[in-house]
Amino acid sequence: MEKVIILKAGGNIIDDEQQLTAFLQAFAAIAGKKILIHGGGKLATRMAAQLALPQQMVDGRRITDAETLKIVTMVYAGYINKNIVAQLQAFQCNAIGLTGADGNIIQAHKRIHPTIDYGFVGDVEGINTTLLQQLLNNNCSIVLAPITHNGYGQLLNTNADTIAQEIAAALAQNYGVSLIYLFEKAGVLIDVHNDASVIPSITPQQFAQLKAQGIIADGMLPKLENAFTALQKGVQRVIIGKANVLPELLSGTSGTTLTMGT
Amino acid sequence: MEKVIILKAGGNIIDDEQQLTAFLQAFAAIAGKKILIHGGGKLATRMAAQLALPQQMVDGRRITDAETLKIVTMVYAGYINKNIVAQLQAFQCNAIGLTGADGNIIQAHKRIHPTIDYGFVGDVEGINTTLLQQLLNNNCSIVLAPITHNGYGQLLNTNADTIAQEIAAALAQNYGVSLIYLFEKAGVLIDVHNDASVIPSITPQQFAQLKAQGIIADGMLPKLENAFTALQKGVQRVIIGKANVLPELLSGTSGTTLTMGT
Repeated sequence: MEKVIILKAGGNIIDDEQQLTAFLQAFAAIAGKKILIHGGGKLATRMAAQLALPQQMVDGRRITDAETLKIVTMVYAGYINKNIVAQLQAFQCNAIGLTGADGNIIQAHKRIHPTIDYGFVGDVEGINTTLLQQLLNNNCSIVLAPITHNGYGQLLNTNADTIAQEIAAALAQNYGVSLIYLFEKAGVLIDVHNDASVIPSITPQQFAQLKAQGIIADGMLPKLENAFTALQKGVQRVIIGKANVLPELLSGTSGTTLTMGT
Repeated sequence: MEKVIILKAGGNIIDDEQQLTAFLQAFAAIAGKKILIHGGGKLATRMAAQLALPQQMVDGRRITDAETLKIVTMVYAGYINKNIVAQLQAFQCNAIGLTGADGNIIQAHKRIHPTIDYGFVGDVEGINTTLLQQLLNNNCSIVLAPITHNGYGQLLNTNADTIAQEIAAALAQNYGVSLIYLFEKAGVLIDVHNDASVIPSITPQQFAQLKAQGIIADGMLPKLENAFTALQKGVQRVIIGKANVLPELLSGTSGTTLTMGT
């Protein structure tokens, strides 16, 4: 099966101009088919503050009212996405920047919740890989902003980690997919304050143990559960590590690699 | 030769939500290959005002400093482009929203001028139709925002009329291209205050006469010169007219059609 590498880069990389450029150069140098899914970083929050728009957060998620949706669409799909594309083109990587509305790649619906109205936050309903496959087969590298649509003309703000997992799972039908979550830490750590304590590989059995022992907890739990869901859906491996060691992550000499085991 | 229809829609359509939706429904209903190139409208100006960023205009063109480039990239490539795409998807038109940086479609350079520094305004240097042709042949309709790049990672703000003409001329090598400029008026008028005075068709000879008689003047002159340049480069016809009569423009029963004559 032909390989596809899917990377998810978060705010810590997007917000740091120098780190972003170094990362994009490394991304451009990856041979073969590849997709970059980016988050938003602090720019949307800063823009909302400049426009004097109060931001409401519930459980670490932004409540997306109409004005906030406008801002995240502008910042994620416009400013961040197109600047990444232009930089990749400068590194001779034929990039194309998209959202989930383009080519109907990601259908979503407004989040349904018994007590909280998340506003224009979208949960993924389905992935259409037609356009992605056409572009990958034409040697385009795809840069995806975390904006989806409901099929009725409404854009929605969607979690980039989830999008990465769903896209990886959908492409796993036809490609050998590696999914890489770029992270502030060097990988999954035994001691959260010690970057040298990286666990090099984790299987579902080991994950259950680490969870029971309380070594994996808090914000890392949903990330890893998300990752193992991707593996269950056919993704070959999930790697978690730092953006500044991209070649090492791909060769397995840095970061944490999650697999279903043997 | 297979046909491609290229439409350029300006601020007057983009700014009016109801008119935009009606126009997008008509656009979605056009059979065959099609490209929509959109301008920016008043939203970028409004956003700049909200952010207390003074706008400088010279000869009707926005001077694009770094902050203004950020805003137009956000508004044109993000908000406007992606909302158009989502609406077209709702009308069962498989749209994909791009800028000139995506797939390296439009290479540009910063405008060179002896006395005025236009900032990040880009003049078109070349068109690469590879991605456009791949997408058109895969039944995607393309929505293009007037943002280009210089190949060195810099985005540039570029006139949408010029982009439409350049894209039309480049695709004329391989397709029979109709280029449609959507406009506030019903077409080229003998009496600028009377929408019933539309000139149904103009050849280069007639254009020279109308210009000499002073019937075509002011803002209409560069528009028509632009249009005849496209015809000289192989575009089959250029139509100028109103967005709310799109089928009539395509059938030649409304608007002004420019051709090289027989």
